[in-house]
Amino acid sequence: MTGTLYGVGLGPGDPELVTRKAARLIGSARVIAYPALAGSDSLARAIAADLIPADAREIVMEVPMTPAREPAQAAYDTGAARIASELDAGHDVVCLCEGDPFFYGSFMYLHARLAPRYAVEVVPGVSSLTACAAVSGRPLVARNEVMTVLPGPLPEAELRRRLHAADTLAILKVGRHLPRLRAVLEAEGLAERAVYVERATLAEEVRLPLRDAPETAPYFSMILVTKGADPWL
Amino acid sequence: MTGTLYGVGLGPGDPELVTRKAARLIGSARVIAYPALAGSDSLARAIAADLIPADAREIVMEVPMTPAREPAQAAYDTGAARIASELDAGHDVVCLCEGDPFFYGSFMYLHARLAPRYAVEVVPGVSSLTACAAVSGRPLVARNEVMTVLPGPLPEAELRRRLHAADTLAILKVGRHLPRLRAVLEAEGLAERAVYVERATLAEEVRLPLRDAPETAPYFSMILVTKGADPWL
Repeated sequence: MTGTLYGVGLGPGDPELVTRKAARLIGSARVIAYPALAGSDSLARAIAADLIPADAREIVMEVPMTPAREPAQAAYDTGAARIASELDAGHDVVCLCEGDPFFYGSFMYLHARLAPRYAVEVVPGVSSLTACAAVSGRPLVARNEVMTVLPGPLPEAELRRRLHAADTLAILKVGRHLPRLRAVLEAEGLAERAVYVERATLAEEVRLPLRDAPETAPYFSMILVTKGADPWL
Repeated sequence: MTGTLYGVGLGPGDPELVTRKAARLIGSARVIAYPALAGSDSLARAIAADLIPADAREIVMEVPMTPAREPAQAAYDTGAARIASELDAGHDVVCLCEGDPFFYGSFMYLHARLAPRYAVEVVPGVSSLTACAAVSGRPLVARNEVMTVLPGPLPEAELRRRLHAADTLAILKVGRHLPRLRAVLEAEGLAERAVYVERATLAEEVRLPLRDAPETAPYFSMILVTKGADPWL
């Protein structure tokens, strides 16, 4: 019998936003896997730190942050091979994922490599999307409203084209694109309805009107463009 | 000192997908509030049933399911007034919300009424969106992909216009609109990439290719139109 791979969403950062199912799976795991940006600590491991058994084996996937895809793909190839060895030996593997595994999560790269050959269960987690809405007190969508989720690195022409196609916009992966995104939203008359959130639910969380956001943003940051509260009265 | 209103997301249905924070807040609550469709049991209460203290007071908001908005608004007016009485007396109130409170959640109607006057904390939950993706093994979005979330009751012309505006589509609140939505997706050449999910993570969960979906769907159902797994390899 081969083992099962669990892709476990950990939520946005606050360890209390881990689900009871994720906590149970991690707490009884014998093999844990997680990505870490090369040279950095793993946020996923930090969120789950108080749950990981002291004697669990840990498979760390060091993922280089480069514009080229090949180095990251090679890191996931290597990680998938190490996970496959454990599964072949009949051991379950719990893979830790920031946020939700299937919402811009790196677990998708392991899923693509391993789901054709092994039993895989994905445990959904609280996504950064609703966490940013919660901490900023901004309802996302109600009734028949439409929401669009856009990655910040999109080219400007595509951003502009999509900005007016929904009632609510969430722009993820803001990072170094913040000045450009702010300029586009200002030009399109949407900046006054926009809030900026970084590291939602962590101690270092920042929430600001977009106009007051810093010039440089971390990768884990988001801009929400929502309606006011009135439409829900 | 007035009390604090907590809007607590419970996730899609499996009680194990409740976060540790939600479990702590519910387990120590003295006053619990939740909506129930008039004449039905409350799904929110059912998800949290094993956590609710036996001596907690319960405020039930019976919400009529009518096309007109006024009867539901009146139910939230009454519920908000009862919650306000508890908050004025210095009692915290924990409001139970299916999924995430700010993602098509009825908590938004209480938030609009009470957040201007009282301390409100929103605790995000696992949304049906990522839960449906997890149980169907369908990654939602990666890299620079765009996702649009559409409510099923949208008029056909608007649906058609928006269908091609994103890499991934999630159509919520499918319910009685299923035959119409299926016909539109077939006409637009998207049906083969579409899966149908109802009551994700509950014992009665149903997952089917859209072509095999039943003619009548419950309110808690979704259609996901995603790419295949290949783009993530």
